[in-house]
Amino acid sequence: MLQHEIKKRVSYGETDKMGYLYYGHYAHYYEIGRVEFLRNLGMTYKSLEDDYKVMLPVKSLNMRFVRAGQYDDLITVRTILSEYSATGIVFKTELYNEAGKIMNAGEVRLAFVDSETMRGCPPPQDLSDLIENRKKILG
Amino acid sequence: MLQHEIKKRVSYGETDKMGYLYYGHYAHYYEIGRVEFLRNLGMTYKSLEDDYKVMLPVKSLNMRFVRAGQYDDLITVRTILSEYSATGIVFKTELYNEAGKIMNAGEVRLAFVDSETMRGCPPPQDLSDLIENRKKILG
Amino acid sequence: MLQHEIKKRVSYGETDKMGYLYYGHYAHYYEIGRVEFLRNLGMTYKSLEDDYKVMLPVKSLNMRFVRAGQYDDLITVRTILSEYSATGIVFKTELYNEAGKIMNAGEVRLAFVDSETMRGCPPPQDLSDLIENRKKILG
Amino acid sequence: MLQHEIKKRVSYGETDKMGYLYYGHYAHYYEIGRVEFLRNLGMTYKSLEDDYKVMLPVKSLNMRFVRAGQYDDLITVRTILSEYSATGIVFKTELYNEAGKIMNAGEVRLAFVDSETMRGCPPPQDLSDLIENRKKILG
Repeated sequence: MLQHEIKKRVSYGETDKMGYLYYGHYAHYYEIGRVEFLRNLGMTYKSLEDDYKVMLPVKSLNMRFVRAGQYDDLITVRTILSEYSATGIVFKTELYNEAGKIMNAGEVRLAFVDSETMRGCPPPQDLSDLIENRKKILG
Repeated sequence: MLQHEIKKRVSYGETDKMGYLYYGHYAHYYEIGRVEFLRNLGMTYKSLEDDYKVMLPVKSLNMRFVRAGQYDDLITVRTILSEYSATGIVFKTELYNEAGKIMNAGEVRLAFVDSETMRGCPPPQDLSDLIENRKKILG
Repeated sequence: MLQHEIKKRVSYGETDKMGYLYYGHYAHYYEIGRVEFLRNLGMTYKSLEDDYKVMLPVKSLNMRFVRAGQYDDLITVRTILSEYSATGIVFKTELYNEAGKIMNAGEVRLAFVDSETMRGCPPPQDLSDLIENRKKILG
Repeated sequence: MLQHEIKKRVSYGETDKMGYLYYGHYAHYYEIGRVEFLRNLGMTYKSLEDDYKVMLPVKSLNMRFVRAGQYDDLITVRTILSEYSATGIVFKTELYNEAGKIMNAGEVRLAFVDSETMRGCPPPQDLSDLIENRKKILG
C-alpha cells in the first residue's frame, strides 16, 4: 500500500473559538498530504497541471472527526493511495495528534480532467509508471 | 421538512488557481448555512454556546462535488434538518449556482456536548421545542 | 467622497481560540468590501478581469486593530475610494461592530495590471467614467 | 538583531484565481513565522497563553507586496524582532521566493494583554530574559 506521512502544526489562525482546529480546515490538511504524497512519488501536482495539462478536481470528500485538533499540536498527516483507475484517484487520509492518537480519517476522490478540454481523461502514463514502480519496490 | 436558504457570494479569496471555489471552503458554507438555519428557527448558535453551555462539534462530514463554484457567483445554500435525536443533529446541505444548478450536496453530523464537562449531553429543551413548533406550523 | 457599506457576519470558522475574529481574516473583509463598492458603482471586479483584461493586484496593506471582532457580530464594512490615478486605486476601509464602534481601519493600494502583458496599465475608461459620474451625482 | 527563518510551501488552497498566493493569507504566514521565532527562542506562544496567562493581540499590520507568490513555491519566512518594550513587541517579516527574491515585507505590532483581566500588562520576565540571553550569545 503506497503511503506517505508529513507533519503539519496547528496554527492559531486555524483554531476556532472552541479552541480547536476548525472542522473546515481539515480538507486543506488533506490537500497538503496528497500533494506531498505525489512529490514523494516523483511527480509534483504543479507539474501535472503545468506540463501534463491535467487537473484533479475533487469529486467527493468524506471524513469523520474522532478527537479535536489542539492548537500548536504537530499533526501527522498520513496519505494512502486507495484506488487508482482510468478515471481517478482515491486517497485515504488519517490525522494523528502528537500523542499518536487518531484525530480524523477520511477519503477524497479526484478525477483526471484535461485542462484544455475540461473533460475527463486518462491518467498521465508517467504517473501510472511511477505508481507501478513504487509498488514493485515495496513488493 | 425543516429547511432554510441563504445566499453567499464566492469571493476572490475563496477561489483557487483553477479559478473555482476551493474544495476546502465548502465546509465553511455549510457552517454559515446551519447557523442561519438555527437563527431562523429562533435560536442562535452563539446562544447555544453562551447561554445553554452546549457546543456542537462536528462528528462527520460528507460531500460530493457536482459542478465547480465560479468566482462572484451568488450561491444558494439550502440547509435541511435531516435528523434530530438525543445525541445530535444531522444537517443536509445543498449548494446551487446562480443558474439554479446543483453544485454540491452533503451532510454534517454534529453532537451535543456540555461545554463544562466536555461530555455528550441531551439537546436543550428550548431547541427541541422550537423544532417541534416549527414542524407543527409547517404541518 | 465615494463610499459604500456592506454587512458581514463573523462566522465560527473566522474566529480563533482567543474567541475573536482572527487578525488574518480582515484582509478578506476588505476584499469583499471593495468588490461590492465596485458592483455598486456599476462595474464588477469579475468584469474588469474577464472583459477588460485588467487585474488589480494589491501593492500594500495597512491596518490597525482597535476593538476585537466578536463571533456572530454583524460587522459593517465601509469602503471609501481614497485615491484614483493613472496607476492604481487606494481604498480606505473601516469596520464597525454591531454597537457602532470602530473595530478596525486600514488602507489597500492596488495597481492596474494588463492581464495579458502582466504590466502596469491605465485604468479602463469605463471605470473612470463611472467614478466621475458618481462624483457628479453626489456633488 | 534577533531573527529566525522558516520555510512554508504555497498550497493550492492558498492560491486565488490569479494563480498567486492570495493577499489575505500573508498575515497567516507572518503568524507562523513569529510563533516559530518564539519557539526557537525557547518559549512557545501556547505557553505564553496557557502558563503565563498572557495574550498578544495584534495592534497593527503593515505590508507591501513586491512579487507575487507562486503556487508550490517554498517560501522563506524571515521574522525579525524589531522592538520589545513594556507594552508590546514589533516583528518585521520578510518573505522570499525560491529564487531568493523578496516577495513581501511588513511589520506586525502586538500588545501584551493579561488574559484574565483583558488589560495591558508587562511582558513575562522569562520572555525578557530569553531575549536578553539570546542577544548576549549573538553579541
